[in-house]
Amino acid sequence: MISQQYPSQLLERAVQEFSKLPGVGRKTALRLVLHLLRQEDQDVQAFVEAVSRLKHDVCYCKTCHNISDAERCPICADPRRDATTVCVVENIQDVMAVENTQQYHGLYHVLGGVISPMDGIGPSDLEIDSLVKRVEEGGVREVILALSPTMEGDTTNFYIFRKLAPYDVSISIIARGVSVGNELEYTDEVTLGRSIVNRTPFEGK
Amino acid sequence: MISQQYPSQLLERAVQEFSKLPGVGRKTALRLVLHLLRQEDQDVQAFVEAVSRLKHDVCYCKTCHNISDAERCPICADPRRDATTVCVVENIQDVMAVENTQQYHGLYHVLGGVISPMDGIGPSDLEIDSLVKRVEEGGVREVILALSPTMEGDTTNFYIFRKLAPYDVSISIIARGVSVGNELEYTDEVTLGRSIVNRTPFEGK
Ligand SMILES: [Zn+2]
Ligand SMILES: [Zn+2]
Repeated sequence: MISQQYPSQLLERAVQEFSKLPGVGRKTALRLVLHLLRQEDQDVQAFVEAVSRLKHDVCYCKTCHNISDAERCPICADPRRDATTVCVVENIQDVMAVENTQQYHGLYHVLGGVISPMDGIGPSDLEIDSLVKRVEEGGVREVILALSPTMEGDTTNFYIFRKLAPYDVSISIIARGVSVGNELEYTDEVTLGRSIVNRTPFEGK
Repeated sequence: MISQQYPSQLLERAVQEFSKLPGVGRKTALRLVLHLLRQEDQDVQAFVEAVSRLKHDVCYCKTCHNISDAERCPICADPRRDATTVCVVENIQDVMAVENTQQYHGLYHVLGGVISPMDGIGPSDLEIDSLVKRVEEGGVREVILALSPTMEGDTTNFYIFRKLAPYDVSISIIARGVSVGNELEYTDEVTLGRSIVNRTPFEGK
């Protein structure tokens, strides 16, 4: 496609910003921006404020590192949840994906990614030490590893397994019902739910 | 899909706002919002500012009603453009679509839509009177109708044709090389360019 001349720098800037979003090309960005331009002032204001407030005011749960509006997320703060079980996931979307299965009633621990030497992500970039500390402090009987079934996920599983080996905690891994190489968040709810129910003991060697 | 419980009201609000954008479902909205959340403060600030500034500071060209940063758009202000020819289009995207063909060197007139009784859009909601005024003031030798080849586009073409009939101006319509019923902005550049080159005199009855 021929590079497009925009009649307005302001339009160009807004389209550029939208194009930075994942999966949004310039054509889609233009459509989204022109849509916003057609909305009422207060509606655009609401959009802008929602983004700003989220960025400035959002917290992360001090226990599980899930996104939260307070120091403790609603899941950690819920007394009906089983606090003896911790499900380790990569990110916030994965918390929501597991919650959506309605098969899991324990707590979570959000790592913030997986170990990936290619991307320069090592164990210290992730919430692994805080997971070990949670286990060390007692009360956790089972850690369920629910990372993506990729090479990086496997590496991370193994790393966590070794870190937790000294402690009296059982470590399980969600059943590999999902196709190897796929991202966890795109797994359908039934498969993901079943893979939690059918979790197996983690064999570390 | 089970309705999703968000761990944060701020997140919920931001996802809601993104979901209002055309073609953006809740899953996509969540991905976009979490992407923004991972960016640096100043990058999110740049995103928010670009949207705010566009909404507050953008102008529309007083001559052709194209989007612009000033009272006259860069196309109307360009002395190399042929000011005797005016191409009538529905919206800003269509200006860009025709510009992209690199086949047209005249000016534009952005109607802001087409006559659509179903959507409650009548001639007075569109920039038709201002088009007639432009022709009335003289200097325009040809008006090219480049609306979408839909029933509403045809109705609007015919309405404009009758409004301009009293004036000494030739009225042409872009060649129907495009499939009837399709939106103009999704037409590929080659087809659209050819349809401008092959424009035919408008037969009003
Ligand atoms: Zn929490
Ligand atoms: Zn103009």
